[in-house]
Amino acid sequence: MLVIGERINGLFKDVASAIQKKDKKIIQDLAKLQVKSGAHMLDVNTGPSTMKPEQDIVWLVNVIQEITDVPLVIDSPKVAVLEAGISAAKNKTMINSTTAQKEKLDSILPLAAKYNCSVIGLTMNEKGIPSDAQAKSELALQIIAACMEQGIPQENLFLDPLILPVNVTQAQVKETLEAIKTIKTLSSPAPQVILGLSNVSQGTKNRNLINAIYLVMSMACGLDGAIMDPMDKEVMNAMFTAEILLNKTIYCDSYLKA
Amino acid sequence: MLVIGERINGLFKDVASAIQKKDKKIIQDLAKLQVKSGAHMLDVNTGPSTMKPEQDIVWLVNVIQEITDVPLVIDSPKVAVLEAGISAAKNKTMINSTTAQKEKLDSILPLAAKYNCSVIGLTMNEKGIPSDAQAKSELALQIIAACMEQGIPQENLFLDPLILPVNVTQAQVKETLEAIKTIKTLSSPAPQVILGLSNVSQGTKNRNLINAIYLVMSMACGLDGAIMDPMDKEVMNAMFTAEILLNKTIYCDSYLKA
Repeated sequence: MLVIGERINGLFKDVASAIQKKDKKIIQDLAKLQVKSGAHMLDVNTGPSTMKPEQDIVWLVNVIQEITDVPLVIDSPKVAVLEAGISAAKNKTMINSTTAQKEKLDSILPLAAKYNCSVIGLTMNEKGIPSDAQAKSELALQIIAACMEQGIPQENLFLDPLILPVNVTQAQVKETLEAIKTIKTLSSPAPQVILGLSNVSQGTKNRNLINAIYLVMSMACGLDGAIMDPMDKEVMNAMFTAEILLNKTIYCDSYLKA
Repeated sequence: MLVIGERINGLFKDVASAIQKKDKKIIQDLAKLQVKSGAHMLDVNTGPSTMKPEQDIVWLVNVIQEITDVPLVIDSPKVAVLEAGISAAKNKTMINSTTAQKEKLDSILPLAAKYNCSVIGLTMNEKGIPSDAQAKSELALQIIAACMEQGIPQENLFLDPLILPVNVTQAQVKETLEAIKTIKTLSSPAPQVILGLSNVSQGTKNRNLINAIYLVMSMACGLDGAIMDPMDKEVMNAMFTAEILLNKTIYCDSYLKA
């Protein structure tokens, strides 16, 4: 499982404040702690409140790179911000994200091709986020086709069937599991599927438990990675256990300590 | 999810001792506690140490029925013990179990037909327990066919793809998840699939966590029921959460208390 740390995002107050004050330590501590907890990549998002997102993303990338070499996921709705972040990054990056909307595909995919980035493709378009598995899979197929046209290799594409909070739209949660199963059958070798996990539990009590259970259910359906909080031990222990049960890690009695 | 309480089994020392001493209270307390914890049915097994299993299963059935009306699962490798238990039971029972072996099918299925019992079909035969999903599914299909021949309706059959301990044979654990998915496609409406859950964690550390995670992964693959310990809160909370995420129970903030 590819674990992408979600915490360096201006939607969190501590990060927004650190960006405003240019307080390196808060960002670097979050980067260190996420990597130490098991993150393979770090999502980097200035959040919506900054007036200078292009400068701020470069600042974030630079301060993170001062203390770790893990690859970064540049996360922004704006192409200029994405390109600024990608250009500042030392290693291969991932773009978060395109949708299946034509103008998005036309602006984001050339960027991914130019810089040899990975890219997250969200199964939504100008009509919104479909609630059923079939419609999500059809949008996934459109994104796969657009990537092929642009010469983006399959290993650089991660499809995200977009989970919404269970307390807002419950039927869609099960449909997203079905979408994962269906997307995994769209090509051989199978497409890679990723989720922005924490969204499923937004606004609920028992957030850790809901995140943990949804993560391992998604893994049983074929999930390859998640943008999540690696500092949440309940979620990480569930994930390590699921990796054992899926025969991806060798069992040993002390696997939770390893 | 159909929850079948596993605790009234002579393999547990307290139950073996209670059977030997004919101590009703221990058995009745275990029955009450399992039902209170959420069991929909109770498995009843004398264990291997008794010299009079036919008398003992009748005693067990009677003492349980003194304090609860939940239906019972009569669990024995011996046809005579099964028939004794079924005859003593007031409500419709489930037989645990037949295999795909011809002599088993020929002796157990007529019993299920005669008494209108449900029956658990284990995907194994005289060659043993297959380790891959395809072979498990083929044996499931043989059991389905045998039930059709005997006029046993589909709602009375529960197929068990037989999970083994993850620390003994790890690859088979994933194959059993795949077997659940495949068995669910063998007919329309889909066959019912059940697991003897606790076996997956036999001999491991972290038994509760492994049971909980495997249960919800199996539910994501289509599992309909499990023989398990309903008094294990970690497993039950995971199951309640999975039922919400599969849209089988309506979400409310206090769902874990309900």
